[in-house]
Amino acid sequence: MRADLVTHRLDALLVTHLPNVRYLCGFTGSSAALVVTEHVAVLFTDGRYRTQARSEIKGAKAAIVPLAPVAAAGEWLRSNRKSFARGRRTLGIEGDHLSVSEQARLCQALSSTFRPKTVLPLVEQMRMLKDQSELSVMRSAADLGASLFDVTLRTIEPGLPEVEVAAAMEFEARRRGADAMSFETIIASGPRSSLPHGRASQQRLPRNGFVVCDFGVILRGYCSDRTRTVHVGRASRAARAFYSAVLEAQLAAIDAVRPGVTCDEVDHAARKLLKRSKLAQYFTHSTGHGVGIEIHEPPRVAAQQQKVLEPGMVITIEPGAYLPGQWGVRIEDMVVVTETGCQILAPGPKELIEI
Amino acid sequence: MRADLVTHRLDALLVTHLPNVRYLCGFTGSSAALVVTEHVAVLFTDGRYRTQARSEIKGAKAAIVPLAPVAAAGEWLRSNRKSFARGRRTLGIEGDHLSVSEQARLCQALSSTFRPKTVLPLVEQMRMLKDQSELSVMRSAADLGASLFDVTLRTIEPGLPEVEVAAAMEFEARRRGADAMSFETIIASGPRSSLPHGRASQQRLPRNGFVVCDFGVILRGYCSDRTRTVHVGRASRAARAFYSAVLEAQLAAIDAVRPGVTCDEVDHAARKLLKRSKLAQYFTHSTGHGVGIEIHEPPRVAAQQQKVLEPGMVITIEPGAYLPGQWGVRIEDMVVVTETGCQILAPGPKELIEI
Repeated sequence: MRADLVTHRLDALLVTHLPNVRYLCGFTGSSAALVVTEHVAVLFTDGRYRTQARSEIKGAKAAIVPLAPVAAAGEWLRSNRKSFARGRRTLGIEGDHLSVSEQARLCQALSSTFRPKTVLPLVEQMRMLKDQSELSVMRSAADLGASLFDVTLRTIEPGLPEVEVAAAMEFEARRRGADAMSFETIIASGPRSSLPHGRASQQRLPRNGFVVCDFGVILRGYCSDRTRTVHVGRASRAARAFYSAVLEAQLAAIDAVRPGVTCDEVDHAARKLLKRSKLAQYFTHSTGHGVGIEIHEPPRVAAQQQKVLEPGMVITIEPGAYLPGQWGVRIEDMVVVTETGCQILAPGPKELIEI
Repeated sequence: MRADLVTHRLDALLVTHLPNVRYLCGFTGSSAALVVTEHVAVLFTDGRYRTQARSEIKGAKAAIVPLAPVAAAGEWLRSNRKSFARGRRTLGIEGDHLSVSEQARLCQALSSTFRPKTVLPLVEQMRMLKDQSELSVMRSAADLGASLFDVTLRTIEPGLPEVEVAAAMEFEARRRGADAMSFETIIASGPRSSLPHGRASQQRLPRNGFVVCDFGVILRGYCSDRTRTVHVGRASRAARAFYSAVLEAQLAAIDAVRPGVTCDEVDHAARKLLKRSKLAQYFTHSTGHGVGIEIHEPPRVAAQQQKVLEPGMVITIEPGAYLPGQWGVRIEDMVVVTETGCQILAPGPKELIEI
């Protein structure tokens, strides 16, 4: 992190995006600003978090302050300005994660001792590459998430409202130790399976049709993400072919994942197979996304994304195809990029299951 | 809303806080910017929300745009600048809900045709006063939320992890039609009951001790919020006295709620009773907060808050007392301010329950 300050000619960086704060110093409270300088890192939070700050923070000092953390950070920088270079000092800010009002309070506190400058998402770039301890937590999160599919299979039955499947999965997730779900569980059945983001509704499961199940948990701060599509009743030949086409696309995209390949190329691998099955036009979203402390984080695995994959990145591979008003299928795994290719987290069978 | 533009000398207002967007035009998507002028309201969102925008939006036009909604709003204002006064036009912005990066994109799109100006939370001020249809939804949300306490009572038993109580309540909330929980359910037992915000953990319920249960649902976009504290096993005389002191404080605060009274006065009513019981120092948070589309919204019911209560405001009354490491008690209801006093939403018994 501190090398980045030099590279980007910053005297200090103000970190206000909470997942970045957590990543850099371990603090999980909801009110925080972290100042990183060449020599020191200081976390500012309020009195509610005194005990928590003491037990969680590593590699930073904690300052419990009576005012807004951003303003306190500004005042601290102003008071300590003499330990920085003279002249026009630059403070990097996270422009996507600092509000206009917070910036105004910051500038008032800094009183021209530092010039705030929006910088690239530096911490997000570091977070893309997971280290061994992060990967170990992510494997556990992926395993726990994947284990919920057993609940899905034994809960699904024609006539049951979609939300009851979601509720049963979420109940088990909590029992099995998840901090929370990583997003609102998607259970989209029958014609609703053609909605790429059909959160579980009061609609009842059909006697015959696809059910898209997209679900994930948060475990020790890291997210899992997985999709399986099952079929209630006997699948028609057309439905089977449709499912197979999506599965082939997913396998092809996973096969394309290795260091040196761009995100665009992975996306293209999935799209190429769906084109062959004449389904490309029904694949209306991107192939995947990075996952970690946040459920969606860089890189984007999408057309025209020139980001090159590196070992330690964790991404989802989740092509889908959706015939509006008729049906949809999506199949998703998380994979970690390795030295030679990739490894699926919580691998499992993906043949079509009829219930 | 449009009268506010004149009062505050604004040519237009850019609404970027999603709960405000929902309040003004009904749109519930996650990507939106709403421009309000004297003559028209236009909602900008992206292609994913085409169908949803059409079915949800009332009192505004919808524009489906390929770029960021804030930038699209800026471009629309620039193109339509001739329908506004000449000279220096002013665009109100929500400073707490527009990021520094979004502001930069907005300014680029406006290209000096309008001057952005952070304004008071105008829409939040309107939202404080609930109309009859909102109150009707909020009563239903409060009833649904309150009904979950039956689940709490029949689930609680010594040795069960706290999260299982939370999971059972959340499962039932879903089954009974809640959109979601309005916040992470708090089940804090034994010594953990002394943590004012002890979300349900893997800790097992004690054989003897308090359990603070703080829970709420979202129903048709509106939040409920309620706390009950029960006792597992027989409560000691000291525990009973402690509970009674908090309950008396809560009843006194509710009694103080009526039009013309300040939030400070309601807070003081609770604090005065706890002072009499020599527990004032253990009441470490404020007495309550407004609730509606957001779980926490204005007004704050706290010391020094001079906001005057008006009919139609919905606030929580939730004093508590916490002996660190020993135990804690909190009791909370939602009340709506009426012409003559207030009415509890989903009233119910509050005597100490021993399980």
